[in-house]
Amino acid sequence: MKYQEGMLVPNALKDQVIMISGGGTGLGAAMGRYFLSLGAKLVICSRNIDVLNKAARAMEKEIGGEVFPLACDLRDYEQVAKMYEQGLAHYGKVDAVVNNAAANFISPTNRLSSNAFHTIVDIVLKGTANLTLVAGKNWIKEKAAGTFLNIVTTYAFTGSAYVVPSASAKAGVLAMTRSLAVEWAPYNIRSNAIAPGPFPTSGAWERLLPGELAEKFDPARKNPLGRVGEHQELANLAAYLVSPFSAYINGEIITIDGGEWLQGAGQFNGLKAIKPEWWDAMDAKRKKK
Amino acid sequence: MKYQEGMLVPNALKDQVIMISGGGTGLGAAMGRYFLSLGAKLVICSRNIDVLNKAARAMEKEIGGEVFPLACDLRDYEQVAKMYEQGLAHYGKVDAVVNNAAANFISPTNRLSSNAFHTIVDIVLKGTANLTLVAGKNWIKEKAAGTFLNIVTTYAFTGSAYVVPSASAKAGVLAMTRSLAVEWAPYNIRSNAIAPGPFPTSGAWERLLPGELAEKFDPARKNPLGRVGEHQELANLAAYLVSPFSAYINGEIITIDGGEWLQGAGQFNGLKAIKPEWWDAMDAKRKKK
Amino acid sequence: MKYQEGMLVPNALKDQVIMISGGGTGLGAAMGRYFLSLGAKLVICSRNIDVLNKAARAMEKEIGGEVFPLACDLRDYEQVAKMYEQGLAHYGKVDAVVNNAAANFISPTNRLSSNAFHTIVDIVLKGTANLTLVAGKNWIKEKAAGTFLNIVTTYAFTGSAYVVPSASAKAGVLAMTRSLAVEWAPYNIRSNAIAPGPFPTSGAWERLLPGELAEKFDPARKNPLGRVGEHQELANLAAYLVSPFSAYINGEIITIDGGEWLQGAGQFNGLKAIKPEWWDAMDAKRKKK
Amino acid sequence: MKYQEGMLVPNALKDQVIMISGGGTGLGAAMGRYFLSLGAKLVICSRNIDVLNKAARAMEKEIGGEVFPLACDLRDYEQVAKMYEQGLAHYGKVDAVVNNAAANFISPTNRLSSNAFHTIVDIVLKGTANLTLVAGKNWIKEKAAGTFLNIVTTYAFTGSAYVVPSASAKAGVLAMTRSLAVEWAPYNIRSNAIAPGPFPTSGAWERLLPGELAEKFDPARKNPLGRVGEHQELANLAAYLVSPFSAYINGEIITIDGGEWLQGAGQFNGLKAIKPEWWDAMDAKRKKK
Repeated sequence: MKYQEGMLVPNALKDQVIMISGGGTGLGAAMGRYFLSLGAKLVICSRNIDVLNKAARAMEKEIGGEVFPLACDLRDYEQVAKMYEQGLAHYGKVDAVVNNAAANFISPTNRLSSNAFHTIVDIVLKGTANLTLVAGKNWIKEKAAGTFLNIVTTYAFTGSAYVVPSASAKAGVLAMTRSLAVEWAPYNIRSNAIAPGPFPTSGAWERLLPGELAEKFDPARKNPLGRVGEHQELANLAAYLVSPFSAYINGEIITIDGGEWLQGAGQFNGLKAIKPEWWDAMDAKRKKK
Repeated sequence: MKYQEGMLVPNALKDQVIMISGGGTGLGAAMGRYFLSLGAKLVICSRNIDVLNKAARAMEKEIGGEVFPLACDLRDYEQVAKMYEQGLAHYGKVDAVVNNAAANFISPTNRLSSNAFHTIVDIVLKGTANLTLVAGKNWIKEKAAGTFLNIVTTYAFTGSAYVVPSASAKAGVLAMTRSLAVEWAPYNIRSNAIAPGPFPTSGAWERLLPGELAEKFDPARKNPLGRVGEHQELANLAAYLVSPFSAYINGEIITIDGGEWLQGAGQFNGLKAIKPEWWDAMDAKRKKK
Repeated sequence: MKYQEGMLVPNALKDQVIMISGGGTGLGAAMGRYFLSLGAKLVICSRNIDVLNKAARAMEKEIGGEVFPLACDLRDYEQVAKMYEQGLAHYGKVDAVVNNAAANFISPTNRLSSNAFHTIVDIVLKGTANLTLVAGKNWIKEKAAGTFLNIVTTYAFTGSAYVVPSASAKAGVLAMTRSLAVEWAPYNIRSNAIAPGPFPTSGAWERLLPGELAEKFDPARKNPLGRVGEHQELANLAAYLVSPFSAYINGEIITIDGGEWLQGAGQFNGLKAIKPEWWDAMDAKRKKK
Repeated sequence: MKYQEGMLVPNALKDQVIMISGGGTGLGAAMGRYFLSLGAKLVICSRNIDVLNKAARAMEKEIGGEVFPLACDLRDYEQVAKMYEQGLAHYGKVDAVVNNAAANFISPTNRLSSNAFHTIVDIVLKGTANLTLVAGKNWIKEKAAGTFLNIVTTYAFTGSAYVVPSASAKAGVLAMTRSLAVEWAPYNIRSNAIAPGPFPTSGAWERLLPGELAEKFDPARKNPLGRVGEHQELANLAAYLVSPFSAYINGEIITIDGGEWLQGAGQFNGLKAIKPEWWDAMDAKRKKK
């Protein structure tokens, strides 16, 4: 299908340096690969340098270009600052930051310890704040333009049961996105976000919900479009949002979920289960009046 | 239960004149009765003068006070203007307008004629615009303060399948509410709205979805709180919003639905179906790591 | 600047037939030209056939491809149905519909007649409903996939003073977008919208607000990014949303306004007017504590 | 003015035990006083026991009833748990929790240290999570009904420059409110929030913005209603939301700001500055056409 292909003109990100937190695996790596193929150079960071090194070499081999892996714990501002400096020293500039790293527990909230809750807030919200502060301060000091792309979730605005620490932390990232879109716009710094619906990474859903539960709660089945998203679809949107082509989109959160959250939200959407014959009968009845 | 009782101090609406479109039946009448009991005087209007007369007499008999019934087709500006003038002449003032009249078709949209679509837009959106223009122009000319309370739905912002003309028209009313809250605030005219979830009126749900379907789609069962709303709950909120006690609430749409729309919207809310034993197993697994 | 260039790979819309209401002028024509250059074939419709013919010939001459102009009054379902049939007969299919035609009055609402209000609702909301019903019914009958792209405004969800009929009607279109995104997804019909901020068309702003007022309310000056949008920026986003590359975006309204609405909305955004020296003093004071 | 008076029927909160974080000063104390006057018993908590003791004695003397002051640092789960246990032991139950404590820095974000950012997140988001976890776990274990009322801000959903840590943390609280409204509804636990606009506490605004700046950014002047809110207005709304009268409101965030955020958000709201004569000229021009 066409949506499995890249959509931007060749070299759309030519020589842009893009830093991706959590860029060694999953959606972060998927975005990174596409950015690379459009001419970008990458910094990828996370805690595990072995995973990063392996990912970097694989990406370079597959696509070409340059991927610079740097270990850091996003919760620790000093580590983040040092990591950013290294990336900056290496490439001479950083054009865009993708705050993609995340963590989550799927659990009834009353079964969570406060420690568990705080850990998610630290990684997701404080981690994003740390990298955002480091990059923003640098860009403002250097009078350099920059772009933030933050990966949130559809439940960052609706909330969701069973993932409450993540919902709270991602909502914080969403508000940060909108706030800085305004505050830092005069410095030529844009801020946007993507709220992805179901984009499963290999094995993740099965790990979360093993066996028959994975099938019962299969996100493809309940999606209005009857399928989950392909990584390239997210990568296309992400590449657009870090590219200069989206220069007038600022402070926006773009949902890409097939219409999933809306399907749940609308009061009468459940009537989808009604059979045509019944609508026929109802039409007939209405016309008789 | 306490929520079946009135909540405001006695005489909270003493001598206020409140005009309610569609005030002879259903939720309109429920709000009207409570307003009356708080000392308000009413104008109720709709197309069917017989229904209105009967309702007015019943309300006066049950509660006391004065209810002035006036027939008009809300789609026709001239009729609305004349109706308003009669109410104004009768009481000497109008303090608040409740745009409550509505119409709806539950149907797949592709089964609707454009006429059906237009009819709902005419009644709901143009009807509300007509009464709003008449009242607003009068208040501004007379330098009188005034309050609008518009009854919308939860799907006015999320949209909903199978009630698309109503969703579109109610969304229009919602935007009108927010727009005029700002534009007419300097004239001491406030505008707010209520987005009610399931507040069934006697027989309505069964008429819409007869027999086993009514049971299958029973709105009480799918509500987070396990029940539908009581009319007095809506009447309490409505009385607050037309009273001076809400003087600093302006441009706001208050949802009262037990959390229904959110339950559908949040990505992981469906995990409610998971049994405790499974969460136990998952906890154990997480701790082992 | 790069954002003045097209962003999608060549032939991204190869052989797609796209119908654009109001496609002969302004933003409609800008989108149409870019669609053409990506390989699409167009139907453009509005009331004035002379304007359409001229635009069609100019577009074909400039870009190549085929533009089929058809006159119709969108408020009249029969005319819309006939127009659609002609386009369908001509090309053999219609792949996407862009509901772009609009009308607006900038005026205090209390100065508007109900006729003026109704006219905007008829063109914007009923016109969109008409074309949507015609296309949707056809696609469902023919088991053909289809895509709706509806052009709304940022004030479709926030409301706005002085453009209340437009705000109400566009909010209706927004709710229609979200509703049908869910209802018609099983038929492979997607629905999305764009909420553009200031994308002036030549002379429009000056016509609306002549002379010193146009300067005083210059939308470029109050935008966070300090400029208005370029037509190509909107065309890039629109092309993405009608293309298969956005296949998993459904029910979404994408704002492209430089962050304008957010800048107004955030409570402390006005502090932008504060000078650095004052922040210096405040920092010093905080540190002394 | 009537909005300076209490609105609920006498004894509306008879014998309810309500715990208010930050309940010794400002809006927390204002809500507490009104709850007391409706028959509630209070626990108030914050870090400074001297302030709490003084406030408790003053409230009891002024209004009667019982106020139990307890010191705790909300950032520390163990302290919060102990505080809750003490309140519970004292009264035998806790019926409602008002998460009201907050902290804020008004500053350009690039001038903030990560420590400053983290501190706000810890107090506002983790503090609220701590008290919410303690109370929720207790209610669920005891099969007791309960009500959360969280105080957020209007910029929790729009974001705001210059208060970004607070915007992020409050957005997290907003998402927590919506998430738990669904997740804990089956346990008879409701969750709602209030988003207050400008409700100045004595001296606060002047401390934040001294001298001529306080005047220049006077929130009364830029409010659509031309004034700031009175504490009793907020107290009325809060009392309604912790009372059984709001039993069907769940997961809702109610904004009470006079329409402030909407005034900024709507694209054409700035045209308020246009003089009537100019609209006259524009009307004349339109009619000539």
